Amino acid sequence: MSSVVSEPAILHQVAIGLGERSYPILIGSGLLGAPACWRDLPAAPAAMIVSNSTVAPLYLQRLAGALQGRFRKVHHVVLPDGEAHKDWATLNAVFDALLAHACDRKTVLFALGGGVVGDMTGFAAACYMRGVPFVQVPTTLLAQVDSSVGGKTAINHPLGKNMIGAFHQPVRVVCDLDTLATLPARELSAGLAEVIKYGPIADMGFLDWIEEHLAALLARETGALAEAVRRSCEIKAAVVGQDERESGLRAILNFGHTFGHAIEAGLGYGEWLHGEAVGCGMVMAMQLSRGLGLVDDALVQRVTRLVRAAGLPVQGPRLGADRYLELMRVDKKAEGGDIRFVVIESPGRAGVRPAPEPLVREVLERCTA
Amino acid sequence: MSSVVSEPAILHQVAIGLGERSYPILIGSGLLGAPACWRDLPAAPAAMIVSNSTVAPLYLQRLAGALQGRFRKVHHVVLPDGEAHKDWATLNAVFDALLAHACDRKTVLFALGGGVVGDMTGFAAACYMRGVPFVQVPTTLLAQVDSSVGGKTAINHPLGKNMIGAFHQPVRVVCDLDTLATLPARELSAGLAEVIKYGPIADMGFLDWIEEHLAALLARETGALAEAVRRSCEIKAAVVGQDERESGLRAILNFGHTFGHAIEAGLGYGEWLHGEAVGCGMVMAMQLSRGLGLVDDALVQRVTRLVRAAGLPVQGPRLGADRYLELMRVDKKAEGGDIRFVVIESPGRAGVRPAPEPLVREVLERCTA
Repeated sequence: MSSVVSEPAILHQVAIGLGERSYPILIGSGLLGAPACWRDLPAAPAAMIVSNSTVAPLYLQRLAGALQGRFRKVHHVVLPDGEAHKDWATLNAVFDALLAHACDRKTVLFALGGGVVGDMTGFAAACYMRGVPFVQVPTTLLAQVDSSVGGKTAINHPLGKNMIGAFHQPVRVVCDLDTLATLPARELSAGLAEVIKYGPIADMGFLDWIEEHLAALLARETGALAEAVRRSCEIKAAVVGQDERESGLRAILNFGHTFGHAIEAGLGYGEWLHGEAVGCGMVMAMQLSRGLGLVDDALVQRVTRLVRAAGLPVQGPRLGADRYLELMRVDKKAEGGDIRFVVIESPGRAGVRPAPEPLVREVLERCTA
Repeated sequence: MSSVVSEPAILHQVAIGLGERSYPILIGSGLLGAPACWRDLPAAPAAMIVSNSTVAPLYLQRLAGALQGRFRKVHHVVLPDGEAHKDWATLNAVFDALLAHACDRKTVLFALGGGVVGDMTGFAAACYMRGVPFVQVPTTLLAQVDSSVGGKTAINHPLGKNMIGAFHQPVRVVCDLDTLATLPARELSAGLAEVIKYGPIADMGFLDWIEEHLAALLARETGALAEAVRRSCEIKAAVVGQDERESGLRAILNFGHTFGHAIEAGLGYGEWLHGEAVGCGMVMAMQLSRGLGLVDDALVQRVTRLVRAAGLPVQGPRLGADRYLELMRVDKKAEGGDIRFVVIESPGRAGVRPAPEPLVREVLERCTA
């Protein structure tokens, strides 16, 4: 499947407007191997492709070949696959490779893989010699619609997910939809969680569209995927453009994530995929919004149905409410011990607010099994 | 000595102008224990003081006491002392402490110590939850005149010094000259290396002043120290204000550092103090400048005499020219394998340029023993 290289075609281009840190997202087919996608990157003697043991055998050579026209030396480092390796030891393998090849401070890093590779490569780029440029080449739906855009980078700490990181914007994001052909079904669903997210928080029309095109998305039709990635990136771009460093508005992109992070941490990172935890977390956050009197049950059921139809869990693991609360209190969005939840204020509009503990316990009781 | 607390007196204040990242440097006596120095810091539930095993017994309690008026909780973490511990494992002790105390993203970090504590605390602040504010409270002359100002933070990698880090500006720098009373003589001299540096690169009048007041500085007279710190910070502020992220001009602050870093790395970090290596590196860089026909021998001899009189080495270890060159090629200022040296273009003015390898070898031959 992965050996079929289509004629390069940029189907959409989305601009992230961040002043001198602005950059384009290219969305299309056959982009990985198209030198045109890489021609006008910052000049540098060397490129370093960071990938993982699953993605590298499929796509590393194609990207390296296309980059050879732009960089004198194209190095690579292959990390072990999975959220469990999103730690300092694995990050250090990137620094080891950079220093072993005497890479200077102009070296351009390429993140070829999913969200974990993107987060780690971005953080490595933020820190190597106090900052080098990097390009996101996301090969999962989740990374294409969410994690590769916006400049959040991080690694995990044993006591919390994404606790150590930086805001470091890529110089370009290249979403080659062809790479989604090799994505396991479970990861496709995980990506759809973040696509669905954009509906209730920002655009009910997009929620309609997703419902109508879910079958096409699950069948990986290029046109449907291209549209889902485009609209997701557009919404994310608008939010990030207004609040790059998450001092306010940007937090709405974390809809479902406070509950989701607790699920991931409670089960041990890597047990559930991030998108699976977010899908379930969105159902919980919808229930919480209803409990706060913000939305009606029809919307809760509608989102729940869509999450389920996308192949995602709608019931969380039974960790116990105390454990959930403990895990949520250490979340980055907590302030002074108060848990702050992203809720739906009204259909298509999100906000951040605390919630009474009894209500949170009630939601956890109803949404875990 | 350290139990004598003078009446708090801010003798000088230097402003670092970096737009919304601007901050003041307070220079004076008795500042550590003066609540007035800490009153208008960002509001937060918690403060975390990071110090080391040498400085903490002397000054931690005094600072913690003064901060109690401003922060509900004042935590601390004490790191092992020395450049050898400027690594990930030690940095992680800061993250462990922050997470163990459930510190949120408003927590203010305080770097109480020398350059190593400042660099590590600053980098921890840059990365913790993708960035929290921090305050520099430098207790060595080197940190007061150089490393605490300008926002460069980093840890070392086995293959290179300061290879992993970030630009992250402190919200304030508080230089309490009283803390220099407990500084070992060797470290006082190391700090003077960075003071002397500002003469040839930026202000020959300041070089005159240092020559005239060297005895007073070595005797730790408060007035002389205050003036040395003030003028050093002023020059650094002017340079950093024009080039925060070291794309050009700022590199001149690394006068003597390319040779110096090679000495430190070649001997193993911690063998020579950073300031000792820089002192010797400046002598080498002066010789290189003369070899390039930029300055005359009288200036070389003048700087060499002052470096020696300050108690610093003027001859480097005999690592062999090949080893020096190898170590300098991996330096961050190297680009595409070319070593770029900070040289004195004319008295009081520095620049960055490559140098012919035979000349570099000649300088290394002459300046090592």
